[in-house]
Amino acid sequence: MSIVKGPQAFPRAEFLRRLTAVKAEMDRLEVDTLIVGNSSDITYLTGYTAKSGYVPQAVVLSLVDEEPTFILRRQDAPAALHQTFMDRGKIIGYSEALIGNPDKDGFDAVIDFVNEPGAANRGVGVQLGALSARSAEKFRSRLPKARIVDCTHSVAWIRMIKSDLEISTMREAAAIADAGVLKACEVIRPGVREADVVAEVAAQLARGANGKAGTDFAPMYFCSSPRTGTSHIQWSEDVIREGSQINLEIAGVRHGYVSAIMRTFSVGRPSDRLRRLHDAEVSGLEAALGAVRPGATCSDVANAFYRTLEKSGFQKDSRCGYAIGIDWSEPTASLKDGDITELRPNMTFHLMVGNWIEEDFGYVISETFRVTESGCEVLTKSPRKLFEL
Amino acid sequence: MSIVKGPQAFPRAEFLRRLTAVKAEMDRLEVDTLIVGNSSDITYLTGYTAKSGYVPQAVVLSLVDEEPTFILRRQDAPAALHQTFMDRGKIIGYSEALIGNPDKDGFDAVIDFVNEPGAANRGVGVQLGALSARSAEKFRSRLPKARIVDCTHSVAWIRMIKSDLEISTMREAAAIADAGVLKACEVIRPGVREADVVAEVAAQLARGANGKAGTDFAPMYFCSSPRTGTSHIQWSEDVIREGSQINLEIAGVRHGYVSAIMRTFSVGRPSDRLRRLHDAEVSGLEAALGAVRPGATCSDVANAFYRTLEKSGFQKDSRCGYAIGIDWSEPTASLKDGDITELRPNMTFHLMVGNWIEEDFGYVISETFRVTESGCEVLTKSPRKLFEL
Repeated sequence: MSIVKGPQAFPRAEFLRRLTAVKAEMDRLEVDTLIVGNSSDITYLTGYTAKSGYVPQAVVLSLVDEEPTFILRRQDAPAALHQTFMDRGKIIGYSEALIGNPDKDGFDAVIDFVNEPGAANRGVGVQLGALSARSAEKFRSRLPKARIVDCTHSVAWIRMIKSDLEISTMREAAAIADAGVLKACEVIRPGVREADVVAEVAAQLARGANGKAGTDFAPMYFCSSPRTGTSHIQWSEDVIREGSQINLEIAGVRHGYVSAIMRTFSVGRPSDRLRRLHDAEVSGLEAALGAVRPGATCSDVANAFYRTLEKSGFQKDSRCGYAIGIDWSEPTASLKDGDITELRPNMTFHLMVGNWIEEDFGYVISETFRVTESGCEVLTKSPRKLFEL
Repeated sequence: MSIVKGPQAFPRAEFLRRLTAVKAEMDRLEVDTLIVGNSSDITYLTGYTAKSGYVPQAVVLSLVDEEPTFILRRQDAPAALHQTFMDRGKIIGYSEALIGNPDKDGFDAVIDFVNEPGAANRGVGVQLGALSARSAEKFRSRLPKARIVDCTHSVAWIRMIKSDLEISTMREAAAIADAGVLKACEVIRPGVREADVVAEVAAQLARGANGKAGTDFAPMYFCSSPRTGTSHIQWSEDVIREGSQINLEIAGVRHGYVSAIMRTFSVGRPSDRLRRLHDAEVSGLEAALGAVRPGATCSDVANAFYRTLEKSGFQKDSRCGYAIGIDWSEPTASLKDGDITELRPNMTFHLMVGNWIEEDFGYVISETFRVTESGCEVLTKSPRKLFEL
């Protein structure tokens, strides 16, 4: 029997709007066919969020077709039929014989689909930067008459500016992230295992907020004493102790869209140094948010943060944020000195001022915000506190 | 202040044993220097499990040094000092200026480290298959006198055979996966949202089993009616109904090692067709397990499954398993017809006989097993039932 279409997170008109924007870029690049393998771009163009991207798959856009074609593993084709807005004929499942096969893989099926032997000098956009050297070579050798154009981040730059519908979805994700912070406040206590805190917070991120469930787990980082100088340890087997500090980074997810937040927790009274750092970082964060408006650059926002932080005698040597959206970070703009990307309404960023000052001492706070017509809207709403528990 | 070393999941002697095996392979390939960027290989060689692999990083092995050198983002160097067995001098943090920089990235720092201008024709092993075309070209152009040797899966083939210590860790992970199945039995009920089941199961996977916490979340798949013909949808916003079927795939994780399990749940009485498929699949699964012994091939095991399944009038067109270990699937052997990889003691596999027969009808069951001296040990212990709830 046929699988039914599931409820769609966005209406068809929203996907057609996105496709129109990508096709305009294809036209500019003189590309007739665009092959998109990046999972986040596929979510953007089709609504597909199933996790089959560990084997090759691609959405193929043509300037002459309204809907794109999604070529993926046969086993995953029903998920594509269920989740995407496209017609049945636009989903092509490739043979299971291409899985775990050292000689051929799913990209061969993609190339078979786009191969038209007569079409010499046709422009074919490929995400070369995301392909392995072997796969890139396969595209070149098996499309010998095509003019291959590198389109690695073409879709990412387009999806950087969200629609109001996407912003609504990110607000829902932000509310879930806030619910996770609140849950962490409830359960972080001396004598509790870190894993048990993580269990409760993860459960909250799945349950969601305001009746909207989390639709996926994003990575979670729970860096506690003596690991507060680290940023990407998931959690440890330790038990929380009196005097422990915990740097938490979590995110809510709705239909692939991620809103992230960081907060720092102190079990018992924080040190004066930690308090001073917290005050300095919050001042810097608020200065950065105050600098957000259309026409300002990422560099302007970052430097508002750095200048304010430095007044308090602290420094941060890493960037203070990046574009955020589908599957967390986007590979486009960074909030850092020298990034002259101009802010435009409905760009969204994770303003991430985590600061790992010494090997064994760091602090985190962050917000997810969008650029508005006149300034910014902070999507995450948790108090900007150093939480004392 | 310096960060302290954390408790190590494995003793130093275990890491040195692994390194000795890899160096023997380097010797065979006439490679003096091996550059390992794959995150799972890095976990294997060093004990590092922090999630910093979304930016370039690499462990560099030299035939003349006992310990490898780990070159990673400066922000993540404290995590490497904390988690790995190596001495302080073997951890090198590269500048934050290489993050979000279109011109240079962390691989430039890795190349700077291995670059010895005098060393012409030196063999340098690189995981070309895992590198983007751009990064592969960078290694070639910036190491012009080196003889670049593709070592994409060299470490993966070595780590395919586990030590007894690794097997113990996978047993702990398997017990966590079993606890997740038990939790699913408790909470899958009509009227419950899928997200609320996922919340409880994920929490259990973090809490762990037998006093051993889960140390990470692996992906979880909760494919319920009408999505039982799909395999990689996380979960939906639906509420479970009387008559629903749920295909669950989860895994326990300990120190990077994954043991996976699949089970099928029926809310209310399953259909006769589902019962027949369950019986056929369990027979096939048990026939496959019966074929496992050192010297048999992956193909032998797979064909024992396929032959038995077909006796009941069902077919499965995808492979029925793959090597499993760090970060779930390993890119080596598959349990499929024609894979003549010979089984050896302490190889571990996910025998995965999920069968997506129609777009809207599928069934799942799986076990994680190890090859023993004379047969097999199934690490996952949940009843091989079609759970009726």
